[in-house]
Amino acid sequence: MNTNTKTHEPRAPITVIGLGLMGAALARTFLKAGHPTTVWNRSAKKADDLVAKGATRAAILSEAIRASPLVVLCVLDHDAVREVLQNAGDAFTGRVFVNLTSETPAQARETAAWASARGIDYLDGAIMDIPQGVGRPQATLLYSGSRSAFTDWQPALSCLGTGTYLGTDAGLAALYDLALLGIMWSTLAGFFHAAALVGTEKIPATTFVPMATGWLSAVAGFLPRMAEQVDSGDYETDVSTLGISAVGLGHLVHASEEQGLTSDVPGSLKALFDRAVAKGHGGHALASLVEVIRRSKPQ
Amino acid sequence: MNTNTKTHEPRAPITVIGLGLMGAALARTFLKAGHPTTVWNRSAKKADDLVAKGATRAAILSEAIRASPLVVLCVLDHDAVREVLQNAGDAFTGRVFVNLTSETPAQARETAAWASARGIDYLDGAIMDIPQGVGRPQATLLYSGSRSAFTDWQPALSCLGTGTYLGTDAGLAALYDLALLGIMWSTLAGFFHAAALVGTEKIPATTFVPMATGWLSAVAGFLPRMAEQVDSGDYETDVSTLGISAVGLGHLVHASEEQGLTSDVPGSLKALFDRAVAKGHGGHALASLVEVIRRSKPQ
Repeated sequence: MNTNTKTHEPRAPITVIGLGLMGAALARTFLKAGHPTTVWNRSAKKADDLVAKGATRAAILSEAIRASPLVVLCVLDHDAVREVLQNAGDAFTGRVFVNLTSETPAQARETAAWASARGIDYLDGAIMDIPQGVGRPQATLLYSGSRSAFTDWQPALSCLGTGTYLGTDAGLAALYDLALLGIMWSTLAGFFHAAALVGTEKIPATTFVPMATGWLSAVAGFLPRMAEQVDSGDYETDVSTLGISAVGLGHLVHASEEQGLTSDVPGSLKALFDRAVAKGHGGHALASLVEVIRRSKPQ
Repeated sequence: MNTNTKTHEPRAPITVIGLGLMGAALARTFLKAGHPTTVWNRSAKKADDLVAKGATRAAILSEAIRASPLVVLCVLDHDAVREVLQNAGDAFTGRVFVNLTSETPAQARETAAWASARGIDYLDGAIMDIPQGVGRPQATLLYSGSRSAFTDWQPALSCLGTGTYLGTDAGLAALYDLALLGIMWSTLAGFFHAAALVGTEKIPATTFVPMATGWLSAVAGFLPRMAEQVDSGDYETDVSTLGISAVGLGHLVHASEEQGLTSDVPGSLKALFDRAVAKGHGGHALASLVEVIRRSKPQ
């Protein structure tokens, strides 16, 4: 939802640096929302399609940055971010800098420190969607860093999707991004193992999906209670213990091998659960697993 | 929904063998639904509470089995199942035998073979819920094995929850059970790691949960397309490749360590993803991960 909708008010100019799949999707979305959009990419050819759609191609990086009050950066990784910063001269001065590159929290904080030392308003962000999803209200964008940058520019950024501001620590968006992606990778690995397992009995994965998604929604329903246990450290339970799950994981490892599969996915989980049992959590709730994920502090 | 509702028609007698948390919940539910219920447990004391609620305590195992046309078994594991079968004599003859013990597919098939050799109608089942959930319509029970046992007895069994019949292979219920539990364990490990990660920045897990559950529902939405890719083996994608996820998992491992956590959960996933990349799936869709879960066949 773009709230910048006063009739005839011109849309603010925006610069997009980096025109990979995601950067190009951002620039396309800004253009579509009516923002005069300046683009730059190390290999200039990648701008051709956007120029045909009305974007302005800047010849050099500093010129691109100076063209707009809001500069959105979306490049491959932290090294590419560093390269842009090194070549930017003082062009960022007086601009709001939004960095949507995928980085670690520490890398985001490093860029924030660079910006802070130069008096540049810096907002770090993460796009929780694929390039094709950008521009739909269901697309989630996470932001952290400068609160004023978020407040001032969210009306313009809202054309990309639904934005959530997490706090002034610039590392938070990257932290949430990685935390959520980690849930996705774990869940998908579990699903692919399950699909392979039912597949050994000639059951198509597409047949299994409705049961898997129904079950995943039941599992999501367990999380609020488990989160309470994580926060309180009270792992007493009369329901189902970590020890019972460790035994169950052993059955899954065994059954996977019986059915002719590798057992890496349940096997590494079993090792983790067994470590929690060895630490005395066998009779505790599953949430006590967090105790072996946190590094033990020396007494 | 119990369809056995003709007025004044007496409910069929049912025997429950094994009165652990789950077995006792089953017996309580049958009693509540009006079934004359006979119970037996190796340690007889565990029946006291059920006898007070109207159950009949059988003095010996074979007497318990002979007391009802339907015998439901729910014990600790396969060894306990074997012990019951060894001590049953020929008491199961002419009865329908429903085994709700958690076992591997091969163990379920072994019990089915034992029953088949004796002409006993055998249905294997798995309860996808905690004991406290038994008796609610949302409780899911999976069955496989004798189709006639399921058809004839589903009206009585439906008081336990919603039953789904998967096929005549008695191993299928155990296979689905383990496949679904595997998705749960993977997802929960991912969630606990994510909760630990945001926790390093003093964000409570309960604060993180709404974002995690919303994201999990988005991830569930990816599964139908991914299942098609698993079934077809066509892993071409223009969205997001396994290689990009492997790099992202590296970021998560790195960030977890930077934030002072162990990195076992993302680390073992990264090893799996890296193996898929090494096998040539770096440019393929995430679903190609199933290729390294399946054991390679010799050429």
